[in-house]
Amino acid sequence: MIEKLNLTMLTDFYEITMANGYFESDMADDIAYFDMFFRQIPDGGGYAIMAGLEQVIDYLNNLHFTDEDIAFLEEKHIFSDRFLKYLKEFRFVCDVWAIPEGTPIFPGEPLITVRGPVIQSQFVETMILLLINHQSLIATKANRIVRAAGGRPVMEFGTRRAHGASAAIYGARAAYIGGCAGTACAIADRDYGVAALGTMAHSWVQMYPSEYEAFRKYAEIYPDNCTLLVDTYNVLKSGVPAAIRVFDEMKPENKGIRIDSGDVAYLTKRARKMLDEAGHQDCKIVVSNSLDEYIIQDVIVEGACIDSFGVGERLITSKSEPVFGGVYKLSALEKDGVMIPKIKISENVEKITNPGFKTVYRLFDKETDKTIADVITLDGEPAPGGEDYVIFDPQAIWKRKKLNNFYAKNLRVQVFDKGECVYESPSIEEIKAYCSQQAAALWDETLRFENPQPYYVDLSKELWEMKNHLIEEFNRL
Amino acid sequence: MIEKLNLTMLTDFYEITMANGYFESDMADDIAYFDMFFRQIPDGGGYAIMAGLEQVIDYLNNLHFTDEDIAFLEEKHIFSDRFLKYLKEFRFVCDVWAIPEGTPIFPGEPLITVRGPVIQSQFVETMILLLINHQSLIATKANRIVRAAGGRPVMEFGTRRAHGASAAIYGARAAYIGGCAGTACAIADRDYGVAALGTMAHSWVQMYPSEYEAFRKYAEIYPDNCTLLVDTYNVLKSGVPAAIRVFDEMKPENKGIRIDSGDVAYLTKRARKMLDEAGHQDCKIVVSNSLDEYIIQDVIVEGACIDSFGVGERLITSKSEPVFGGVYKLSALEKDGVMIPKIKISENVEKITNPGFKTVYRLFDKETDKTIADVITLDGEPAPGGEDYVIFDPQAIWKRKKLNNFYAKNLRVQVFDKGECVYESPSIEEIKAYCSQQAAALWDETLRFENPQPYYVDLSKELWEMKNHLIEEFNRL
Repeated sequence: MIEKLNLTMLTDFYEITMANGYFESDMADDIAYFDMFFRQIPDGGGYAIMAGLEQVIDYLNNLHFTDEDIAFLEEKHIFSDRFLKYLKEFRFVCDVWAIPEGTPIFPGEPLITVRGPVIQSQFVETMILLLINHQSLIATKANRIVRAAGGRPVMEFGTRRAHGASAAIYGARAAYIGGCAGTACAIADRDYGVAALGTMAHSWVQMYPSEYEAFRKYAEIYPDNCTLLVDTYNVLKSGVPAAIRVFDEMKPENKGIRIDSGDVAYLTKRARKMLDEAGHQDCKIVVSNSLDEYIIQDVIVEGACIDSFGVGERLITSKSEPVFGGVYKLSALEKDGVMIPKIKISENVEKITNPGFKTVYRLFDKETDKTIADVITLDGEPAPGGEDYVIFDPQAIWKRKKLNNFYAKNLRVQVFDKGECVYESPSIEEIKAYCSQQAAALWDETLRFENPQPYYVDLSKELWEMKNHLIEEFNRL
Repeated sequence: MIEKLNLTMLTDFYEITMANGYFESDMADDIAYFDMFFRQIPDGGGYAIMAGLEQVIDYLNNLHFTDEDIAFLEEKHIFSDRFLKYLKEFRFVCDVWAIPEGTPIFPGEPLITVRGPVIQSQFVETMILLLINHQSLIATKANRIVRAAGGRPVMEFGTRRAHGASAAIYGARAAYIGGCAGTACAIADRDYGVAALGTMAHSWVQMYPSEYEAFRKYAEIYPDNCTLLVDTYNVLKSGVPAAIRVFDEMKPENKGIRIDSGDVAYLTKRARKMLDEAGHQDCKIVVSNSLDEYIIQDVIVEGACIDSFGVGERLITSKSEPVFGGVYKLSALEKDGVMIPKIKISENVEKITNPGFKTVYRLFDKETDKTIADVITLDGEPAPGGEDYVIFDPQAIWKRKKLNNFYAKNLRVQVFDKGECVYESPSIEEIKAYCSQQAAALWDETLRFENPQPYYVDLSKELWEMKNHLIEEFNRL
């Protein structure tokens, strides 16, 4: 949908001033490596979910400067004609590696690496961040909410509170990847295969002389999916009795009630009793009132009788933490074919970047297939393996552990080779299934909402030594 | 940009099931009135800012069902052929009234009213909410941040943390309406005339052997806007000294430094002193590190030496309150030309809707041109005016006030007449200027961040009586 648009100019203006600057400094073709990574898991969670890569691929495949773009830049009177001519003939030639969508991800891991002429590898920063930050935020939040629902389906209902059209569409996509069962957003179904569902608003009920008449008409038209909204006037006094009357009379194939206000724990328990006593044990109860993972966990503990959830604004905006703070940092240069690792120093030790061209391995226990740790290694290093492989905490290297009987999986795939896309995105169903399966392989301790055990993300010995060497070099300055 | 797309299917699925339902019930052409309004000002503020109307107009002008849309709906096997044929020939025929963009708005006021066949006036709910909720959220947040900055320019820097492409583009537009001086987002400049600016990232500095060389090259290329990012290594030990050396050597026309990390109050005071002592009193200091209205207010009180602010993620996501909770409710029906007001009852008195077809007047003091109150009236009532006009608190009617020497301004304009657009959106500069001027007319007490005085939004006597009559009727049921 959105990818049909030319979004080349959807960029921070400084990417263009820098591009022109590199061009004017004769540095345009210097080869640079940039890593996208994030530093903190939203909501203090134990892991995040990677999402948005398919849209990054669409964006990179479509990257070009139109005459309209060039004319716009020309009017700024700060760019050279030579540079504008370069943009006119621009063709993306970088290599790109990435962690596939649906993968549980952790702080510091290079989610995406772009290698190529700095004029290009720098330029794509804004959109890579925008797309991955957004969808990873929503996939992560959805995964938490779905986890809280404990097997009950969760529908994404947030379109009207999303931050604009793409937030609604790609938010629905990301929520589905994170585990939602579907969405209210019709276009996400048409364009991305996220099953869309919906029944009625309060206004449907208000349009008829009585609740009963509104329900009865709905049941006549939609006998196969007759979910009635019972809280327009009074859930227990009028809504549920009218629904029962209509179920009795019309005997719809699939029946449900939805409650969108009030104390859902109390109301669902009472409604369940009324429905059961009327012989409608098969009537599902759907709830959809300002929910998130905390409220869902609470009402389930309270014994609420709920079969499925509709979650709106708190999912589609990730209300409790609406920012996924991914960053895009220079990690290496190539000069005359030699790799020069680059580091960004900070007084905050956790903000110091990992230098060099890297990949990430996830280590699994051979017997349980559960994860043990992730290890970031330098390109060209052998995969972690063998007898007595040692992992260690990079901030406290005396904390070490010998591993045996494990296997290592390289989390990253190559996505572009010299500007050519060499990766085919899996279907959304495959991504969703992969996410569910990979999250299930994590330690149980990383799943809880409060103070989850931090997952191990270690550095290989080689990378750790390179990093510390660069820090010491910096300190000598 | 986005409006070039066919977003007709960007809708909650239930709008379509209801549309088909009305069609099948032979109610499609019943005339219904829907109001969009909101209930709570984000961040506990004193007022919000209306934004997004231009995009609503684009959406309504472009509303149509393509063959692709019809095919998608057909595959659901729940819609009648007759209905799908209706969609194929769909033409928007409703009347629409709205409060123009940039206007300070308050809870309960009908921001938009749609009158027309219920099959249509219901259908447009999702997108009206989506567009107005998003842009009003960001315009409101921007207005708060700009207020905190006390006259210092604020740039919108959040593209990379926006919730997708339209959140970045229309967020930049809304932030500009709310008072920002410009944006980092290039496409918002190209398409909406929001001035975009940008200079360099840390990677620019890292690409050169030294900070000095990176700055010097930049000053050569951009002598007219030489703002140097001084915190890649160490602000006071290396960044500012290198900037001063380059300013001395290159004498750029406009010079500035930007600090993107660390304690900005401390660093800007020290940097200001160093710059002044070196004779660069004209060097501007820009700050851009996780700012919002609270931090900006604090560092100004602390005496930070800051000339302008760049505000990113906390503005573009409205981080402290990322939901603008606008709703869309049925307010009246027409049966055989007679208006039947509709009300939605709630146990929470503030959630009871205002029935009927309404408009909003803002009353201004004739001497000061400051606002006095807003009054919601029924259509056809004379504008508030005359001697001893009485306003009263609709929740506590003994609180009343006699007004003299005031004038009333109808806040709403007609936007569509039988599906024909009859309103031309002002330019973005006009909207921005209108916003600034209208906000300045508010009481000072509504401007503060903590516990602002709630602004008076009263009901006319006629509307109040109609509402209470309907509540009593409901209670008799």
